[in-house]
Amino acid sequence: MATSVTNLEIHDIARTCMTFGIGLCYIVTPLAKQREIAAKLVDHWLHGYGAVYNPARGEALKKVRVVSDLDEMVSDIEGDPLVIGTSSKERQEKGISSTELYSLAESGARPVLILFGTGWGLSDEVVNRCERMLVPIKGKGDYNHLSLRVAIGIILDRIFGERGGRDE
Amino acid sequence: MATSVTNLEIHDIARTCMTFGIGLCYIVTPLAKQREIAAKLVDHWLHGYGAVYNPARGEALKKVRVVSDLDEMVSDIEGDPLVIGTSSKERQEKGISSTELYSLAESGARPVLILFGTGWGLSDEVVNRCERMLVPIKGKGDYNHLSLRVAIGIILDRIFGERGGRDE
Repeated sequence: MATSVTNLEIHDIARTCMTFGIGLCYIVTPLAKQREIAAKLVDHWLHGYGAVYNPARGEALKKVRVVSDLDEMVSDIEGDPLVIGTSSKERQEKGISSTELYSLAESGARPVLILFGTGWGLSDEVVNRCERMLVPIKGKGDYNHLSLRVAIGIILDRIFGERGGRDE
Repeated sequence: MATSVTNLEIHDIARTCMTFGIGLCYIVTPLAKQREIAAKLVDHWLHGYGAVYNPARGEALKKVRVVSDLDEMVSDIEGDPLVIGTSSKERQEKGISSTELYSLAESGARPVLILFGTGWGLSDEVVNRCERMLVPIKGKGDYNHLSLRVAIGIILDRIFGERGGRDE
């Protein structure tokens, strides 16, 4: 399932990643046209008029890379990454809490790659490739339709936020 | 300082509020044109073609109200609301943690109103009217430029999320 990439979305996600000290943010899409749009947007803020208009945005976008699939992303990373999936459904057999994931990331033993899916979420094929699945976000009641960018913010805060269940 | 309201933004915020069981979500803007745009968007998803195309979106937007200022919002709420501000700057003299705010909200003694500012954040005038100010979100380092919709998601999760520092 491929969905579209928008200017607002890339910005929001890049700024969230910067705030929580994430090293790199990959946009993965099999659609060549979407990769082209994403690369143009990043270039505009890094080198085009956007760099003059608002240099702080370019700073966040320096960490964005655009790739066509999971394999390309994994081979771009040095070392053997621990691949973690996210989903609104619980997968108890390989569940991992944000606290446990934080400890693994801080240990530095392996780079950590956290996958987020747009539209209908990560495909079953991708979920099968994930070593562990993060425990889902739950609010009150059954309505759980967070947008991708909001879900990314909440999850990174749960793992890496200064509060993060550790400081309070 | 007034900023603009977009379709994407209202949706994301409404969906986040639904997920965390928030009763009502007010959009406050002094600009009549912006209020008109916001009201049209809500109407489209509640009664127009959007209601047929995607009824789940309408469900979230039922909780959205559009008002012109803080007084209009406060007078719309039954009872004497506890007005809480949010900011990326710490105001220690009236700071409140998410855990303390959760307890106050759950006690049901007073309705709780949490204010978020777009663009340059809440004005000093609004901050002065807030009884308490929520402790800011902090990630790693000094870069803190979260978008409004992402900040709302993180803050509501910190206060009302099932994990929320209480369940883990």
